[in-house]
Amino acid sequence: MKRLFEVNHWKIVETKLHKEDFRLAESMMSLGNGHMGMRGNFEESYSGDFHRGSYIAGVWFPDKTRVGWWKNGYPEYFGKVINSTNFIGIRVFIDDEEIDLNQSVVTDYYRELDMQHGTLTRKFTIQQGDKLTNVKVLRFLSVAEKELAVIQYMVTPMNYDGKITLVPYLDGDIRNEDSNYDEDFWVEINREVEDYYGLIIMKTKDNPFGTPTFQTAFQMQVNVSGKVEEISHSNQHEYIENKIMITAEKGQTVTLEKYVAVTTDRDYEASQLVQRGKEVLSQSIEKGFDNLLKEHQDGWLKRWEMADVEIQGDAESQQGIRFNLFQLFSTYYGEDARLNIGPKGFTGEKYGGATYWDTEAYAIPLYLSTANPEVARNLCIYRHHQLDGAFHNARQQGLKGALYPMVTFTGIECHNEWEITFEEIHRNGAIAYAVYNYVNYTGDRDYLHEYGIDVLTGISRFWADRVHYNKMKDVYMMHGVTGPNEYENNVNNNWYTNRIAVWTLTYTLEVIDYLLKNGQSDRIAGLSLTDAELSKWIEITGKMYLPYDKELAVFVQHDTFLDKDLMPVDQLSPDDRPLNQKWSWDKILRSCFIKQADVLQGLYFLNHEYSLDEKRRNFEFYEPMTVHESSLSPSIHSVLAAELGMEEKAYEMYNRTARLDLDNYNNDTEDGLHITSMTGSWLAIVQGFAGMRTANETLSFAPFIPSNWEKYTFKIVYRGHHIKVQVTNEKVVISQEGSAFSLKLYGEDVQLGENSSIEIALNK
Amino acid sequence: MKRLFEVNHWKIVETKLHKEDFRLAESMMSLGNGHMGMRGNFEESYSGDFHRGSYIAGVWFPDKTRVGWWKNGYPEYFGKVINSTNFIGIRVFIDDEEIDLNQSVVTDYYRELDMQHGTLTRKFTIQQGDKLTNVKVLRFLSVAEKELAVIQYMVTPMNYDGKITLVPYLDGDIRNEDSNYDEDFWVEINREVEDYYGLIIMKTKDNPFGTPTFQTAFQMQVNVSGKVEEISHSNQHEYIENKIMITAEKGQTVTLEKYVAVTTDRDYEASQLVQRGKEVLSQSIEKGFDNLLKEHQDGWLKRWEMADVEIQGDAESQQGIRFNLFQLFSTYYGEDARLNIGPKGFTGEKYGGATYWDTEAYAIPLYLSTANPEVARNLCIYRHHQLDGAFHNARQQGLKGALYPMVTFTGIECHNEWEITFEEIHRNGAIAYAVYNYVNYTGDRDYLHEYGIDVLTGISRFWADRVHYNKMKDVYMMHGVTGPNEYENNVNNNWYTNRIAVWTLTYTLEVIDYLLKNGQSDRIAGLSLTDAELSKWIEITGKMYLPYDKELAVFVQHDTFLDKDLMPVDQLSPDDRPLNQKWSWDKILRSCFIKQADVLQGLYFLNHEYSLDEKRRNFEFYEPMTVHESSLSPSIHSVLAAELGMEEKAYEMYNRTARLDLDNYNNDTEDGLHITSMTGSWLAIVQGFAGMRTANETLSFAPFIPSNWEKYTFKIVYRGHHIKVQVTNEKVVISQEGSAFSLKLYGEDVQLGENSSIEIALNK
Repeated sequence: MKRLFEVNHWKIVETKLHKEDFRLAESMMSLGNGHMGMRGNFEESYSGDFHRGSYIAGVWFPDKTRVGWWKNGYPEYFGKVINSTNFIGIRVFIDDEEIDLNQSVVTDYYRELDMQHGTLTRKFTIQQGDKLTNVKVLRFLSVAEKELAVIQYMVTPMNYDGKITLVPYLDGDIRNEDSNYDEDFWVEINREVEDYYGLIIMKTKDNPFGTPTFQTAFQMQVNVSGKVEEISHSNQHEYIENKIMITAEKGQTVTLEKYVAVTTDRDYEASQLVQRGKEVLSQSIEKGFDNLLKEHQDGWLKRWEMADVEIQGDAESQQGIRFNLFQLFSTYYGEDARLNIGPKGFTGEKYGGATYWDTEAYAIPLYLSTANPEVARNLCIYRHHQLDGAFHNARQQGLKGALYPMVTFTGIECHNEWEITFEEIHRNGAIAYAVYNYVNYTGDRDYLHEYGIDVLTGISRFWADRVHYNKMKDVYMMHGVTGPNEYENNVNNNWYTNRIAVWTLTYTLEVIDYLLKNGQSDRIAGLSLTDAELSKWIEITGKMYLPYDKELAVFVQHDTFLDKDLMPVDQLSPDDRPLNQKWSWDKILRSCFIKQADVLQGLYFLNHEYSLDEKRRNFEFYEPMTVHESSLSPSIHSVLAAELGMEEKAYEMYNRTARLDLDNYNNDTEDGLHITSMTGSWLAIVQGFAGMRTANETLSFAPFIPSNWEKYTFKIVYRGHHIKVQVTNEKVVISQEGSAFSLKLYGEDVQLGENSSIEIALNK
Repeated sequence: MKRLFEVNHWKIVETKLHKEDFRLAESMMSLGNGHMGMRGNFEESYSGDFHRGSYIAGVWFPDKTRVGWWKNGYPEYFGKVINSTNFIGIRVFIDDEEIDLNQSVVTDYYRELDMQHGTLTRKFTIQQGDKLTNVKVLRFLSVAEKELAVIQYMVTPMNYDGKITLVPYLDGDIRNEDSNYDEDFWVEINREVEDYYGLIIMKTKDNPFGTPTFQTAFQMQVNVSGKVEEISHSNQHEYIENKIMITAEKGQTVTLEKYVAVTTDRDYEASQLVQRGKEVLSQSIEKGFDNLLKEHQDGWLKRWEMADVEIQGDAESQQGIRFNLFQLFSTYYGEDARLNIGPKGFTGEKYGGATYWDTEAYAIPLYLSTANPEVARNLCIYRHHQLDGAFHNARQQGLKGALYPMVTFTGIECHNEWEITFEEIHRNGAIAYAVYNYVNYTGDRDYLHEYGIDVLTGISRFWADRVHYNKMKDVYMMHGVTGPNEYENNVNNNWYTNRIAVWTLTYTLEVIDYLLKNGQSDRIAGLSLTDAELSKWIEITGKMYLPYDKELAVFVQHDTFLDKDLMPVDQLSPDDRPLNQKWSWDKILRSCFIKQADVLQGLYFLNHEYSLDEKRRNFEFYEPMTVHESSLSPSIHSVLAAELGMEEKAYEMYNRTARLDLDNYNNDTEDGLHITSMTGSWLAIVQGFAGMRTANETLSFAPFIPSNWEKYTFKIVYRGHHIKVQVTNEKVVISQEGSAFSLKLYGEDVQLGENSSIEIALNK
């Protein structure tokens, strides 16, 4: 655990330059607006270790696969979010001596990420010789105008009259640190520069894999206050700059505003990029800095209005949940159905890919409750768009139907560990589950015939071909899979995978039945489902083997799990932890220790289909063997522990997810933030502490409050109702804006009138 | 299947230049003398596709590991046999036009590998304009003087008087085609050149892994017949050459003899390499070409005298077995206990590594019978030398004892697929088995206290720590292994692995008992075996779980094998074969199809511990599901089929092993020959057709003869007896040189007098 920042309800504040943990701090200070995002890099030059990173949503490159030994069926490339043009850069010279916080004496230093308003501010004073110079920088990526980035750079000579030279530039010569073969992914298409203006157009290199290339245009417009003595411009390959020399008197502030428009051919014809970017720039400059900032801040305030979680009595928890929501919304706010939520968002380039099953399993539940329904709908439609890719993946394995990929940009698998890519197929179940979850939550049944049924049918066809019939035992089985617990692999009859496969078939059959009865016979006919096919599905649902141990009365993680040397995690020496750093891979695989919820993941998803007793027995059996070495693990356990009345356990698990990055628990935040697991803290509060459930199209709550909290409040949207839930040590207050409707509280039906609230005592 | 060569009892003959299959032909024409070896490259320049390859035994490089995702415990490097200085090169110009068989008109062409005498000969006539030139080249790597290579290059102008320019050279600028990061592994240390002489000293680059570097000195001395008009020499970085211009009249043959000495600091101080090489050269030149050739040829004749297998009535089989023996002996003839038998020998650079379990499982049985006992002894001692490496490997996995590597040069694992490296641990059993096999065959019980007991104890300690106790079932189990059938992995309780582990423990306990009773108490005390340790071993041998199916009465390959969709190979479509090229890896893994003998490998090794009925039931169950996609598979099945009286099956399996490379069955011989599986054809004849067994220190035979053969004869050495076995359709004749002893023939005791023979009718 490493905490660089002050605990603060709304801010991430750093008051010391952390040269040794520079990358970690850069990750934490990331900004994003869904269209683009960047690590908390400095504008000015910095000679110490850092990781320059700015990323454009949906712009990626297929990096040629690197493996030790090729396995038949491997994807040819590993898709990567790619580091793009550095558009924030401003070099600063004081009387020709360059500012470099790594070299100069820094007499005070302050960096602040304002999560409430979505801005990054820096203030520092630097001493060069006797000269003291004060700098203040404000940066934001507008949520009101997605293609706009704004930097206000202010320099004040404190104790001298001098010459301030500012060099705003655009640098397209940027590479990914994790390129497999040290390749440059970009080529320059055009550059132009004049005084106060510059342009770089970069394009991703052609590739032999048939994936699209992307063109991105970066244009800057610069405003300067102060007495400009000289201005010039220059350029070189993949680089343009302005050079502006200003004389300033002691105490006089020189201000440079750099407006950058970032347009891509994902959105417009390539030939239109420059024109469109110029429009963004001219409109912005017309509005002026203050108005742009206000629009942007209002955008963030509106998001919080809908989604904020307030915690009283525990400032660390408060900061944690807000940081997570802030970074999630910076990454994705659902405006573009072609996009998804990468595991590092715009904060780093590790893992590659845009889309994991994390989206369906962990992110959609949050977006369903904290944003307009279109956001979750768009995330579901994203998978519909990629159905062809999923068919391709299944064919690659010689199977029918649709296999959604472990990692992808296009629907086509672009990861390459066989035990993951080929075997961790439970992901397919989560895609189907998301359709159910979306429709069940929103009531938007039209989604089923518009999009859902294609995805459900594709996935069901995959499962039906992937299982095999065991004659001797008269059951269907599924061999050679990796469950959510990646600390085992290539196992047979993983309970969770078998269960979610059967669930998919059952739900698909239900949806088909519903659509047939609701005027969609033609739609169903278009799917060419045969009677034989449907009969087979029904047979599989009846005869699927779901490992169960009668004596222990638990579902068995997979066929031979109980043959292992079973022991609780607390019998391990601290020297053994984390296992993934201390043990060789084979030892991890054959141990009983579980990386993340597996059987329990199923009890979380299909919560309403299992009794409390079943949940308790399985939780008590599996949780003690779980090391939670996936950032996705604790939240699921927190929710289940809360339901089982294990309040301390629920709170312990919440804490592991809420401040994962803020306190750098996994010692890897320098590589970027754990974006997709950031939903976990929200799930732990809303589904865990407050016990929110939505099964059977019914909203219900059963809140408790952690013993050290005074109060917590959160807001959700549910079927047009804007609901606010407040929980104190004494009572639960639920208020809403919307028409009257009924919900359940601690299992009892409760009526909530139009725009009203109710209050009941907290169950203890 | 692709056959480029004529069928011939003693020769591999090519009468056409195979430009399209040039690499394949180069592999086939490889030469080696244990100290060094090379592919059948041309001396003169060749502008078409080819693979230059010459290799020095024991000279390797640790190439930095390349993987997709790092797994804890992976080796940092992949050890590779490395391509070294091209020392055969001779450029040839006719009146300044260079000879290049890819460009010139070749009017006749002949290349011959003489396996009986170990020589490679080429003859061709080339037409340049109107000029016809005849070339004849003879090359050998002396088995009498290991550090000597000799080339005789003869050029005859057929229809003109002209100028022949010969440029013998040494080129150290050679790379491995399979370098992970396109690195050059060599640096030049020195070069010298004068008329008729040249020297290049190359050294492997320093590496960060702490493995040794190697220095190799190449020196050439050149003799020329004919009228030398001009001679000059020159050099550049990593390269030296002589240039010799000779005028020749029509019909007059110009001869160049190139003698090359190859010395390495594996054998001498680096400072002595040049001096030692010069001695080799001067002694050789003193002897003269004809004597050198005769010494070399005599060496090969002597090897055949001891080891030849003659087959009458089936020229293809005859050629196959001789080609295999020739290439095996070229790779390894046991003179150097620091060396082992690489999977491609000196014929290519794929797979890397020097040593696989192939040596113990397939090669030692052959060398035991076909060479002096020191050869097999040296192969066993090799593993003793590498015990420290094996301890290291076990520690890397958090385990006690010794884990011999899958691939190695030093004893330290240098392969990097976790399912192989970490899990295919049955290899450890084969190392223990080789100790038993050597001692049982030779009667050399001294080996046990001199070396064997250390290896056995180390391996037993590994097994005892690697198993785990299953309380519920009161058995010991072994989870997470890959058996010999690499078409499954990460399985539990692989019967073969469990069985060989128990066997190791049992045998080690026996050996300890034997040594204690035979004056080696101090030796045993030195092993620090505790009573608790020995008791645990005994307990494991009693309680090891060995999967068995009562209904089928077969040993079960691993825990859930019988749950698979079981079907014979012949139900597959030809389009599905070979599986490893047609199916994705996951499909292969969960199918029932077996790559190579697994349960049957155990029945082969521990043949004397199982009844014919057991062998038959298991053979009939597993063989139909076996695709034999490992080159090591058919031989084991041939031996067992022969024992079970399935003569046709035995012959079919023999054929798959005998001409694997000659007929390029696996379509990959261009990468190099399948050296270690070449023992298979010999095993199939001697242990299969002739039924040779040596269990319980008793030699026995039970021959049959394939229906299309007229006669086969082979020779073995057994405990000082030089035995010749002849089998015809009528009779079996066994003769020997040596003292009287008894053996078994078809299960009956037979006495064989001193230097005598016996004859009995063939059992039909």
